[in-house]
Amino acid sequence: MTNTAIKLSREKVFRDPVHNYIRVEYQVILDLIDTPEFQHLRRIKQLGTTSSVFQGAEHSRFTHSLGVYEITRQICDQFQLNYPSQVAGDGLWNDDERLVALCAALLHDIGHGAYSHTFEHIFNTDHELITRQIITNPETAINRVLTQVADDFPAKVASVIDHSYPNPQVVQMISSQIDADRMDYLLRDAYNTGTKYGEFDLTRVLRVMRPYDKGIAFLANGMHAVEDYIVSRFQMYQQVYFHPVSRGMEVILQKLLQRAKFLYQQPDHHQSLAPQLLIPFFEQNFTLQDYLKLDDGVLNTYFLYWLDYPDSVLNDLADRFLSRRPLKSVAFSQQTQRVLPELRALTEQAGYNSEYYTAVNNSFDLPYDAYDPSAKSPKTQIEIIQSDGQLEELSSLSDLVAAISGRFSGDERFYFPKEMLNENDIEVFAPIYRQFKAYLRNGAINPNH
Amino acid sequence: MTNTAIKLSREKVFRDPVHNYIRVEYQVILDLIDTPEFQHLRRIKQLGTTSSVFQGAEHSRFTHSLGVYEITRQICDQFQLNYPSQVAGDGLWNDDERLVALCAALLHDIGHGAYSHTFEHIFNTDHELITRQIITNPETAINRVLTQVADDFPAKVASVIDHSYPNPQVVQMISSQIDADRMDYLLRDAYNTGTKYGEFDLTRVLRVMRPYDKGIAFLANGMHAVEDYIVSRFQMYQQVYFHPVSRGMEVILQKLLQRAKFLYQQPDHHQSLAPQLLIPFFEQNFTLQDYLKLDDGVLNTYFLYWLDYPDSVLNDLADRFLSRRPLKSVAFSQQTQRVLPELRALTEQAGYNSEYYTAVNNSFDLPYDAYDPSAKSPKTQIEIIQSDGQLEELSSLSDLVAAISGRFSGDERFYFPKEMLNENDIEVFAPIYRQFKAYLRNGAINPNH
Amino acid sequence: MTNTAIKLSREKVFRDPVHNYIRVEYQVILDLIDTPEFQHLRRIKQLGTTSSVFQGAEHSRFTHSLGVYEITRQICDQFQLNYPSQVAGDGLWNDDERLVALCAALLHDIGHGAYSHTFEHIFNTDHELITRQIITNPETAINRVLTQVADDFPAKVASVIDHSYPNPQVVQMISSQIDADRMDYLLRDAYNTGTKYGEFDLTRVLRVMRPYDKGIAFLANGMHAVEDYIVSRFQMYQQVYFHPVSRGMEVILQKLLQRAKFLYQQPDHHQSLAPQLLIPFFEQNFTLQDYLKLDDGVLNTYFLYWLDYPDSVLNDLADRFLSRRPLKSVAFSQQTQRVLPELRALTEQAGYNSEYYTAVNNSFDLPYDAYDPSAKSPKTQIEIIQSDGQLEELSSLSDLVAAISGRFSGDERFYFPKEMLNENDIEVFAPIYRQFKAYLRNGAINPNH
Amino acid sequence: MTNTAIKLSREKVFRDPVHNYIRVEYQVILDLIDTPEFQHLRRIKQLGTTSSVFQGAEHSRFTHSLGVYEITRQICDQFQLNYPSQVAGDGLWNDDERLVALCAALLHDIGHGAYSHTFEHIFNTDHELITRQIITNPETAINRVLTQVADDFPAKVASVIDHSYPNPQVVQMISSQIDADRMDYLLRDAYNTGTKYGEFDLTRVLRVMRPYDKGIAFLANGMHAVEDYIVSRFQMYQQVYFHPVSRGMEVILQKLLQRAKFLYQQPDHHQSLAPQLLIPFFEQNFTLQDYLKLDDGVLNTYFLYWLDYPDSVLNDLADRFLSRRPLKSVAFSQQTQRVLPELRALTEQAGYNSEYYTAVNNSFDLPYDAYDPSAKSPKTQIEIIQSDGQLEELSSLSDLVAAISGRFSGDERFYFPKEMLNENDIEVFAPIYRQFKAYLRNGAINPNH
Repeated sequence: MTNTAIKLSREKVFRDPVHNYIRVEYQVILDLIDTPEFQHLRRIKQLGTTSSVFQGAEHSRFTHSLGVYEITRQICDQFQLNYPSQVAGDGLWNDDERLVALCAALLHDIGHGAYSHTFEHIFNTDHELITRQIITNPETAINRVLTQVADDFPAKVASVIDHSYPNPQVVQMISSQIDADRMDYLLRDAYNTGTKYGEFDLTRVLRVMRPYDKGIAFLANGMHAVEDYIVSRFQMYQQVYFHPVSRGMEVILQKLLQRAKFLYQQPDHHQSLAPQLLIPFFEQNFTLQDYLKLDDGVLNTYFLYWLDYPDSVLNDLADRFLSRRPLKSVAFSQQTQRVLPELRALTEQAGYNSEYYTAVNNSFDLPYDAYDPSAKSPKTQIEIIQSDGQLEELSSLSDLVAAISGRFSGDERFYFPKEMLNENDIEVFAPIYRQFKAYLRNGAINPNH
Repeated sequence: MTNTAIKLSREKVFRDPVHNYIRVEYQVILDLIDTPEFQHLRRIKQLGTTSSVFQGAEHSRFTHSLGVYEITRQICDQFQLNYPSQVAGDGLWNDDERLVALCAALLHDIGHGAYSHTFEHIFNTDHELITRQIITNPETAINRVLTQVADDFPAKVASVIDHSYPNPQVVQMISSQIDADRMDYLLRDAYNTGTKYGEFDLTRVLRVMRPYDKGIAFLANGMHAVEDYIVSRFQMYQQVYFHPVSRGMEVILQKLLQRAKFLYQQPDHHQSLAPQLLIPFFEQNFTLQDYLKLDDGVLNTYFLYWLDYPDSVLNDLADRFLSRRPLKSVAFSQQTQRVLPELRALTEQAGYNSEYYTAVNNSFDLPYDAYDPSAKSPKTQIEIIQSDGQLEELSSLSDLVAAISGRFSGDERFYFPKEMLNENDIEVFAPIYRQFKAYLRNGAINPNH
Repeated sequence: MTNTAIKLSREKVFRDPVHNYIRVEYQVILDLIDTPEFQHLRRIKQLGTTSSVFQGAEHSRFTHSLGVYEITRQICDQFQLNYPSQVAGDGLWNDDERLVALCAALLHDIGHGAYSHTFEHIFNTDHELITRQIITNPETAINRVLTQVADDFPAKVASVIDHSYPNPQVVQMISSQIDADRMDYLLRDAYNTGTKYGEFDLTRVLRVMRPYDKGIAFLANGMHAVEDYIVSRFQMYQQVYFHPVSRGMEVILQKLLQRAKFLYQQPDHHQSLAPQLLIPFFEQNFTLQDYLKLDDGVLNTYFLYWLDYPDSVLNDLADRFLSRRPLKSVAFSQQTQRVLPELRALTEQAGYNSEYYTAVNNSFDLPYDAYDPSAKSPKTQIEIIQSDGQLEELSSLSDLVAAISGRFSGDERFYFPKEMLNENDIEVFAPIYRQFKAYLRNGAINPNH
Repeated sequence: MTNTAIKLSREKVFRDPVHNYIRVEYQVILDLIDTPEFQHLRRIKQLGTTSSVFQGAEHSRFTHSLGVYEITRQICDQFQLNYPSQVAGDGLWNDDERLVALCAALLHDIGHGAYSHTFEHIFNTDHELITRQIITNPETAINRVLTQVADDFPAKVASVIDHSYPNPQVVQMISSQIDADRMDYLLRDAYNTGTKYGEFDLTRVLRVMRPYDKGIAFLANGMHAVEDYIVSRFQMYQQVYFHPVSRGMEVILQKLLQRAKFLYQQPDHHQSLAPQLLIPFFEQNFTLQDYLKLDDGVLNTYFLYWLDYPDSVLNDLADRFLSRRPLKSVAFSQQTQRVLPELRALTEQAGYNSEYYTAVNNSFDLPYDAYDPSAKSPKTQIEIIQSDGQLEELSSLSDLVAAISGRFSGDERFYFPKEMLNENDIEVFAPIYRQFKAYLRNGAINPNH
């Protein structure tokens, strides 16, 4: 079956605040969007607990997925306009790759579940594995739609997502250090949070992309646009994704799920602890269909149930999560982490179970790295192409990128109840509070204590 | 207790994509935002089913409520800067009104529940009554915070919202034909849907507002900015709020709840039909706390349950709602409504229970009206004030506003399953489909049939 | 010569704040932009004296002309994608028309000179005639470039601009009630003035355009986008283009040129009155090359000269223009115009030559009109096309458009020196000022005087 | 005279596309804006020849000056709201400084002339000196307005601009590494060019500024907003201000003025070489009033005259400037500059006077520097203030800023006629062109030649 055969007679569009319109020219794309598995993404927030700090960040994985599709479509258009392959193996763009690229872009996040990373951590789910299953398992509607293109099409789409697809241009479009996924989430998260850090010049970045035999390179005159993108991404991590307060909400979520799991393992737990849709996960025995029933609203519903559960840790953590009362935090370093046991002890003395009311949270990101064969997961480096065809790696040209290249950036924080800072609350505990506070300075553990 | 006493030493801000920052200068505002009742608004979408068409419209009543607060704060600032009252009764702005205005602005929607209007219609709840209860009932956290300002403060705030507060300037800020509520929702809905119809020049409208003894008037040189706001609102109704497809989702939601209620009244219904948090509503015997537990996610969770309920109407409607398969529609007029019985009959013949699979939906709005004492609910008209103090009603000055003033605008549509238009699906029903289609033309019932 | 032959191997772009990029795919377009006649447009402000009120409105006819080109290019792309002609005479888009459309779009304003309308009024120049000459006269670089496409190409381009080109689609793209010219100037003027009135949804308007045998129609589902465009244009006229203060600057400019012309006709005028580049115009004997030397800067330079000219009317008006001291104004009506002679007499009494210091200025625009064969210049009406192909005229569908259709909108104002309102300036004239003021009320002549 | 005495009864506003409104609360500010010297700024482009590349960059020094005023006003407002001085010497904000800060902000560029740096270079004018003269010379309208505030007020305003004013907060607002001037020009140039590099989060930067005894520091939680500003400024220099093509226009301008000066020094020059308003500058004997008559339009007018001057270098350069035919360029390094004599010789061989048709242009900027007492002009470093009051220099906290701190960034380029690259133009010169081209590679001089 040829691509042409399934083209729409006239393009359809979806209104989108970031890209203005998402343009669709293939019936198969419409059919994928209409599957229950894809519609399920509407009920999962893209940024989890971030909206507790950046209130506008209420957008879903659905809108992001359409955005990744749209950017991929624009890349294909540009490649086809300016760099169409003339003969096989010339390293230019072969438009027969378009449909697999578009489908992979649309579906790259299809396996993400509610509060993705936290939930995975507690219940040992794996969104990458599930993404592959949703695409290749014949029981899903997604698979049925993809199979209509060709029998081996689902496997091809999945192979793009797990990087084993033979054409590196297609793989890098969807997944590399400058791909449609990252470009859409930066723009979309910036738009919805109302911060400007994530903004960069998408049109210009797209204009300076060009295919070559080993993937995608960037024209020399667009180097600064690429640099700006790297810097924007770095700043979004520093300012938005690693915000200490939303991590304070994430910590509560994690402890809440951990407590529920612990209680479930007690023989005398009440039936109301394990509501219907969560049982398969408590039992560590879930199907794909079980997984696809979970969403943010389902989890929140069960947290509402837990407000009334007769375990004071569980119901208090549920309340803190639903009423947005995050844990507070201070940064610490390798040097100052030695005092954490003392901080935990003081928290216990003040009446909090430190297993559930204190936590360490690390958030680190590698903003960019040149290819390093000795690295655990070597990166596809960003190549700048000169007018004579010569390639140069980005950080060798940009002082700004060099400054953050290859260095993990982020911090390590100790979380504790906000109440530990209110010494006036109960007179009798005042000495504990004062001791606790004496360890802190300028938002970090005081190295001179 | 004076307002000054509860001022923050330094203003706090919330990042907001529409207003950039929401600025807070009173502790009481922070305390209200931190209540469970206010945080509950985070889990209720501002536009209900609209995001099924305008995918970006995923914002909550929480962000809108902060926005209404912020616009009100800006109005107070402008009034205090340019029109501070000098002597009682001079018709200018008395800044002692600021706190009651801000609290009323923040709380004006506090009683809104999940899928507000549809839910109300089926379960006879009343969000205005509940708003008043949340503010005045001593069991809520909201009430406790307000009472700290003064014992009669909750009642004052409630009276602003129900229009009985004596100062008309405060009432009109929150609720009139050009108020902080409407201005925020137009801008916010435009921002999130990505349409431009709702955009107008907020800064200019605020600049030309001025208090007078009977409320708020607008300077003559700002007439066009006000006109533009009215036209923008008209267009948002036509293009976004009345979109036939999101109404098609609303119709499904309504029929789904109606079917569940019907089944609950049958003696043999299964326990799984009436999940925990909905029981009080099925029983028509709910408390304020029951109401405050419902949110979009809770309802969606129960719709997931109903997917497996052994009633083919219930589980099919739940599936249509969750997988976004709206009913289709055609417009009809007083003249053409005579054929609705025939369309319903054809739908029955095709195998659909027409009580649940067809519907009539009216959506009408009065974009603007001059004050008309004989009207059911007379409007506070928009007054334009000349430099000599003379007032003139807006539609007498603006041809554009006059064109839409006093006239309800919208349409009446007949909804039916999309399948009624697919004559190829099952050969045996083809004649039914052809008959059905023959009634339709250009998106409406054909008057010449 | 075929279009393909002159296509660029890769598209070139110009950065543009309104359209982001202006994309060029033909060498002939680059060559036209590089002519001295086109570069000349950089030195002529698009909005003349408007920047005296909306300070950001400093953009030139050059950027606007590129913008009109870009919108036309996008229309051609959309037509070619969705409505390509299959057989001659099918009423769809023939892409052979692209190049003539693009050139006409780019050159439609090429004959505009400095302070266009005012200069024309005093010196009897005619920018439409000059546009045609620049395109068709073999002495211009523009003509030489166009002739390289084909010998009859200049004449074809000129015929598009003067509406005699046979293909109505091409003519309407460039010149109709909703054309690339108007769409660009609304967006660009809104962007640069910082007002929002001119904003409308360009992408959506372009999407709903479709060619048919008699020109260009608009899809029914895009009716509101077209309506919004008409309303935006109406509001830009009311708020920006007809602003009383920039008209007060225009009046000064007109009187200044008129005075210079008058003085030139006196036998004893000094040589410095008629600087080099203006002489051909004073002599009423200018060539195309003379015309193309004038620009805003040249006129302003000569106004600087006139600051020192020994005629108190000339040097004062020059100073008022350069230092931005506009005449003041009041609106008047047919009823109140009877008092104009008295206002002029009072101005004379206060010491001002009323021929040069008072003026009447009318500014009227017809925001939209349906086709009316009896009108002086019948308009091509905007047609909305239903899904069955039926056409309906816009104002029959839109209440908003109907409200302003066929009615000239604007006002008539009387201009006079600002000093007439300062009664304190010179004690002896106080009675004159008081008498003058007594005629005015709320920015207009008082009908009850 | 107190500030209060001259406050307007109601604020006046100017519409501005960047700041939405410029708000004025003092009569003296309005009076300054209305002077001929300030209105003169309307006729001088902010970015000189940059609009030859970024066509939208047509904005004037007038709009920028109002923008600097507005940002300064907002800083004062924030300081007065959050950090009002309680006792003299507490290092907080004394609002009596507001008026001098506002006037200095408005007037900081008042001495800039047409094509500022190029003109200065050829005619030895000095815009800083002239700024001081315009403010302090009793013959200017600016001085008369300022003197109405107080006799020593002009001197105070001038001392802020030349950094000798005693209050460092006021000085740093107007002139430091992060001041109102730089913040406005980045935002305004980004807006008008349509590039995004210059955008940063102004509102957040303003929020985190705080006065202290030695000037202005930035709160620690705003560090990333400041970092983003520094990076934005760096990128605007790389991408916009140092663009090789607009420098190619600047080189032509410089050579054109240089040639005119040279010809003027020849005894036999024609009268038309030295038009009226330029004579004082050719004679090196100009008054302030002579200077204030020059603007972009005056110079362009004289370039039009020179098109007909019988010197082939002068008239050709004038034509290249007016018709936008920039010189081409290649970058060179210390290593490759040794071949410049050969390139110049080849240019001569091709028939171009290499004194006027080749040039070297260096453009370097220091994006940021910590305070270095040994530097030629030591910078006021940006201080980040911790919650315990401790100060830390920006580049010690930010890897990005450290990467560009203290290092001049830019390049050195060799300019030559575009014709040197067109070997096909004249057969006989082909060998020269081929030789010339052989020196170049990837936009620079080839180091391996």
